[in-house]
Amino acid sequence: MQLLEQRDYQKLRSILSDMYAADIAAVLEELPENKLPIVFRILPKELASETFAYFDTDIQEVLIRAFSDTELEEVINQLYLDDTVDMIEEMPANIVRRILDHTTPEMRLEINQILKYPKDSAGSIMTTEYVALKPDMTVSEAFTRIRRTAIDKETVYTCYVIANDRTLIGVVTVKDLLMHEYENQIKDIMETNVIFVNTHEDKEIVAKAFERYDFLALPVVDRENRLVGIVTIDDAVDVLQDEATEDIEMMAAITPTDKPYLKTGVFETWRKRIPWLLLLMISATFTGSIIQHYEDALGKYIILSSFIPMLMDTGGNAGGQSSVTIIRGLSLGEIEMRDILRIIWKEMRVAVMCGLTLSVTVFFKILFIDRPPEQPITIALIVSGTMALAVVVAKIVGCSLPVLAKRIGFDPAVMASPFITTIVDAVSLMIYFGIVSNVMAL
Amino acid sequence: MQLLEQRDYQKLRSILSDMYAADIAAVLEELPENKLPIVFRILPKELASETFAYFDTDIQEVLIRAFSDTELEEVINQLYLDDTVDMIEEMPANIVRRILDHTTPEMRLEINQILKYPKDSAGSIMTTEYVALKPDMTVSEAFTRIRRTAIDKETVYTCYVIANDRTLIGVVTVKDLLMHEYENQIKDIMETNVIFVNTHEDKEIVAKAFERYDFLALPVVDRENRLVGIVTIDDAVDVLQDEATEDIEMMAAITPTDKPYLKTGVFETWRKRIPWLLLLMISATFTGSIIQHYEDALGKYIILSSFIPMLMDTGGNAGGQSSVTIIRGLSLGEIEMRDILRIIWKEMRVAVMCGLTLSVTVFFKILFIDRPPEQPITIALIVSGTMALAVVVAKIVGCSLPVLAKRIGFDPAVMASPFITTIVDAVSLMIYFGIVSNVMAL
Repeated sequence: MQLLEQRDYQKLRSILSDMYAADIAAVLEELPENKLPIVFRILPKELASETFAYFDTDIQEVLIRAFSDTELEEVINQLYLDDTVDMIEEMPANIVRRILDHTTPEMRLEINQILKYPKDSAGSIMTTEYVALKPDMTVSEAFTRIRRTAIDKETVYTCYVIANDRTLIGVVTVKDLLMHEYENQIKDIMETNVIFVNTHEDKEIVAKAFERYDFLALPVVDRENRLVGIVTIDDAVDVLQDEATEDIEMMAAITPTDKPYLKTGVFETWRKRIPWLLLLMISATFTGSIIQHYEDALGKYIILSSFIPMLMDTGGNAGGQSSVTIIRGLSLGEIEMRDILRIIWKEMRVAVMCGLTLSVTVFFKILFIDRPPEQPITIALIVSGTMALAVVVAKIVGCSLPVLAKRIGFDPAVMASPFITTIVDAVSLMIYFGIVSNVMAL
Repeated sequence: MQLLEQRDYQKLRSILSDMYAADIAAVLEELPENKLPIVFRILPKELASETFAYFDTDIQEVLIRAFSDTELEEVINQLYLDDTVDMIEEMPANIVRRILDHTTPEMRLEINQILKYPKDSAGSIMTTEYVALKPDMTVSEAFTRIRRTAIDKETVYTCYVIANDRTLIGVVTVKDLLMHEYENQIKDIMETNVIFVNTHEDKEIVAKAFERYDFLALPVVDRENRLVGIVTIDDAVDVLQDEATEDIEMMAAITPTDKPYLKTGVFETWRKRIPWLLLLMISATFTGSIIQHYEDALGKYIILSSFIPMLMDTGGNAGGQSSVTIIRGLSLGEIEMRDILRIIWKEMRVAVMCGLTLSVTVFFKILFIDRPPEQPITIALIVSGTMALAVVVAKIVGCSLPVLAKRIGFDPAVMASPFITTIVDAVSLMIYFGIVSNVMAL
């Protein structure tokens, strides 16, 4: 930064050249917009394009606007195809046109091909830069081919064996190649039982396959089983992280977004949150109407209303714990639909234990700390009884709704704390006033 | 399954041999305990050990108990060292002793070494099976070495260059090797600016490095910079998933656990949940005491209590949205401590927009749907005013507490919906009764 002010570009260049692209990107993102292109131009060419791929789209846009046509061409041609596509998807139309004008016709064709795949599909996250081998090549010919094309490929460690019609017939890793003699033929050493995905497969399924099989890359085929691209592990990791973020956002009653928090506008943030708040607010008025219905009982024993927040909150928390545990289990594949009876049975036992602990605590707390002036034992019994029942109901509702949501095709993450709380609140109060009106009438 | 009953082992073997180890493991886990060892023995040796690594520890235990000494030796010697260590960490002592009795002395030494690293450290997830090269080797000598040792190594694609005293001096990928002539020397083509971690580094930091740099493996060094092992991407992916699960559990007020839901006992599940429920329940009684304090106002206008659930829930949801967004941003590294003022400023604007939307809705809802018999406009104004204020306070509390928690060294995930709800409930009610007692006194 200081070097920049002293215009000591030479020194700056030598420092930056020793850094990793990911780190350079992080440093450069902190620079003011007008300095950014200057420093970027100091970078050696190859490192520059590598760094470019690490920037957020808004920084990429600033740079592209500052680039000359030659500079643009240089950077774009060095980028991996999937990074180019990611960038294009988020740029305004005039910039996209400028980018496409500076790519080769073949590349343009491939970009357009990938852009056509639905968002969140395997096709949309794949790259077409993979190593293809023929079954009758020898190991030594395969190495020659890899050496010749390696520079442009995102990964060379998994190579795909295709027939003349481009259908995928096998896969061979560089490790396999290294462990066989040079004169062996690919068709004799390749693995023919290939795990692949279709271009239209959901990217979440793709990421799950990486987790399950510990692959470094996964082939993507079209409807005729022709190899069209590969997904690499780094993109799969991003998908896994995005899916976790999406789940977390939905669990907090927010419509998920792809953008990082600080890059999302105020209006957009509002738009992602307000529908859920409104919906939940309206649902919560139902709970209010229960209170209204028991106005008379409350009017007589106003102390009863002071336990409402505790009963509502504890019910909500107990239900939230169960629902969130089940939602995460479903999304990691640890829990399946057919486990529902085991889940309910387990949660019931946990709920009874939690309910008893809480209700005993609350019983003694009311008796010895709150000490209500009238009928202390009756009140303590009513509140602790409600507590035990509410926790059991909350946990059963909490663990079964996510599974049911999944069964009818909704994302289970919707059935997290906010919704469970709203339902459990109403149920807790109905139990509470049910007991109150029965006991107090005696 | 049917083949198993018909004892057609030949056919079963040929079907299983064509499957991937991860899939075989999934199928075999469904078998009854007494059939499992029989089917496992059908598998070809190499595939058997590969499958073994995919089993959960309880299945591994069943198998080890059924193994003869020779079988045990065969399986253990084929396992990657880090898988063996993972397994040993979860086995009862007598099984551990049996396993260690059947490993070579060198392997036992390495296992003990890894077991000594603290839980959650880089040392505990690394493997010592990596390819080490010397700086004065040629590319061709490097390939010979890789070919000779590849079979035992978890990854051969990133090779580590070490000096005679085993200090790490460079890294070279097989891709680099393939792109240079056979007579080049390693020291001329290796990358000397190596990113590495120390054995005691937190595994979360290690996983973050993979995400940042798109590595396939990361070297682990001791205090004297000597290379002691590597972490591979598949283990880093597991860590990332575990961290997300931990965050989600903490956000739902559950003490995190490593075990999948269905493998956790009822008592353990209770133990992970009850302390938080108790703590939150006790905190919620504070909210109750606010209600008690305003008993008189409530006694006069009992309808006011019917809006309490709606105000509490909406405040809690609004605060929960903000806190969860910030917690995830912090844990993804998208948000840092120094962003706190930007965050508060943004949340304030979102909060005002949300607060207004909600309060206008609630105002008209009370006026035209609820239609309270007395003073409808005053009541509508009080409730909608409280709503607006409560939402703003909730969002500011929700976004700042996680950042503050991080600053004082707590995990921000604790400051999620349950805690925020408890705090916001109390604040909402204070605002509510504050307004009520002022307006109604007029």
